[in-house]
Amino acid sequence: MVSSFPVSRKIVIAIVGAGDEARDTDVANARRLGELIAREGWVVLTGGRDVGLMKAAHEGAKRVPSSITVGVLPSEDADVCPDVDVAIVTGMGNARNNVNVLSADVVVACGATGAGTVSEIALALKNERPVVLVGADPLAVEFFTRLAGTTLCVAESAAEAIEAIRSRVG
Amino acid sequence: MVSSFPVSRKIVIAIVGAGDEARDTDVANARRLGELIAREGWVVLTGGRDVGLMKAAHEGAKRVPSSITVGVLPSEDADVCPDVDVAIVTGMGNARNNVNVLSADVVVACGATGAGTVSEIALALKNERPVVLVGADPLAVEFFTRLAGTTLCVAESAAEAIEAIRSRVG
Amino acid sequence: MVSSFPVSRKIVIAIVGAGDEARDTDVANARRLGELIAREGWVVLTGGRDVGLMKAAHEGAKRVPSSITVGVLPSEDADVCPDVDVAIVTGMGNARNNVNVLSADVVVACGATGAGTVSEIALALKNERPVVLVGADPLAVEFFTRLAGTTLCVAESAAEAIEAIRSRVG
Amino acid sequence: MVSSFPVSRKIVIAIVGAGDEARDTDVANARRLGELIAREGWVVLTGGRDVGLMKAAHEGAKRVPSSITVGVLPSEDADVCPDVDVAIVTGMGNARNNVNVLSADVVVACGATGAGTVSEIALALKNERPVVLVGADPLAVEFFTRLAGTTLCVAESAAEAIEAIRSRVG
Repeated sequence: MVSSFPVSRKIVIAIVGAGDEARDTDVANARRLGELIAREGWVVLTGGRDVGLMKAAHEGAKRVPSSITVGVLPSEDADVCPDVDVAIVTGMGNARNNVNVLSADVVVACGATGAGTVSEIALALKNERPVVLVGADPLAVEFFTRLAGTTLCVAESAAEAIEAIRSRVG
Repeated sequence: MVSSFPVSRKIVIAIVGAGDEARDTDVANARRLGELIAREGWVVLTGGRDVGLMKAAHEGAKRVPSSITVGVLPSEDADVCPDVDVAIVTGMGNARNNVNVLSADVVVACGATGAGTVSEIALALKNERPVVLVGADPLAVEFFTRLAGTTLCVAESAAEAIEAIRSRVG
Repeated sequence: MVSSFPVSRKIVIAIVGAGDEARDTDVANARRLGELIAREGWVVLTGGRDVGLMKAAHEGAKRVPSSITVGVLPSEDADVCPDVDVAIVTGMGNARNNVNVLSADVVVACGATGAGTVSEIALALKNERPVVLVGADPLAVEFFTRLAGTTLCVAESAAEAIEAIRSRVG
Repeated sequence: MVSSFPVSRKIVIAIVGAGDEARDTDVANARRLGELIAREGWVVLTGGRDVGLMKAAHEGAKRVPSSITVGVLPSEDADVCPDVDVAIVTGMGNARNNVNVLSADVVVACGATGAGTVSEIALALKNERPVVLVGADPLAVEFFTRLAGTTLCVAESAAEAIEAIRSRVG
């Protein structure tokens, strides 16, 4: 036997949300979530850019020394968040949103205020990934609840989101 | 000079909407739109599968003998609608939704009832393509209007949608 | 019955080869092939840029008034050949090479002098598409013949290539 | 300051080579390379399937307890090598080969006997990534040397390949 572990593969949680026009509460949730996810031993995966939710999620995760963070970037010339351990360079623009959600065991959206985020939530649902919405406003909650049925969970805080993720990956 | 025309490139209109659980009114709108778009000399582009809105849009277009129809398929083994002239086989699953909208001058959504359609509308907005919503229910209209700002147009009928498209591609 | 034809779908032939540093003989072969393919009623598909083999193939095809030409572009800001009827904008850079070959019934390479062309030939073989090499030098012929086995055909001229394509799509 | 390191991002080395019909020497080279790369603190990235070179590379890397291994998979239903830490699920088939090479600081090919491997080498060169060929036969070496110019390095052993990689990422 070469491998010393039965299976190395780690649980991957994607954090999605606004890049360029992120709300403060969503950024705070993403940073807290990044840290809490890393504490569970799960990989934090985002779109990898050095801005908004992506940046905050990786910063949070890197408060945990053993964390592994993955950024799935749209292009070679995107600014990579310095707290990304492994940069996956897709070169495929917004089509990389589909890679993000396919690679995730659970997708957590901090807010749903931008078109990119909405596309990721919708692609997650289309690909039958569980989705947790954190801090989304009532219109977004109503819209996605109708769209998703039981694969959607609505959380009020990062801590609540972690509970929801645990129930999906346990 | 080899080419006998200054520019051959045609205007491409993407019609998006539900495949497997399409509503009758959305299917009827897609069929009518396919025909009206083809009459304008524009290319009808869909996800290319032989079901729901995609099938209806191509059927409608093929009532016009000079029509050109393009299906952008998720995979090699997808059932191709027989009214597709040119099948683009992406082999990239739902990530092909991004190709559909990038290739379109205008994206028309007949209803917004499924996750795939929502992802296409969101990706269109993210990529700054004009979007026309036809026959969408009030919740979807409210949600996307807030998301889109002025790049979204809401139409009640296929004929109204054609007017909206004309104003964008003229 | 809505559709007036049993099946609209057309045979698609991809022409691949160098863009920026194309050899004169390869360009001449691509132009001739574009015309001959269009005369058969087949769609000419290339990478769509306004340079080298791609440009020549579409120019050739457009000598035939009924031709349909498709360019599968790497990005939104690529220069589109004016003889392309339908531009598919993938936004996925060189990964679009896989879309080109998957969409083709047969892939014809005019020369094999650049890395992009080699990737397309290899992806075609990997995806089990028939490949015709036209005007390739002895080293390339030897290399690809060993790689491909019977899915590769070597032709000396555009006319010979058309015979080879015919035997594959008949 | 949230982050405790100036930059977390790790060097990523892609190991490419045959999956289903790998030669014994190539498999042995991949296993040795996986281990040596991991010892340098670099991430081992492959196509992630549980077969051939990919499997061997990850097995080798996991002999090093601190290693991080990434598998970039073609589809959701691909068998994932159990020694992969982070599985990136692209859902885009062989187009994922472009993601593999774009994500790599250096691409190492163990042999060049299959079409998939040839496509990855060619895509790496097209995207201007340094390529190291290990254990390739004379025809492949001649073909790629002509194609690549100075971005290609030919190595006889895994140890030699590590030296070549070091000179590129130092």
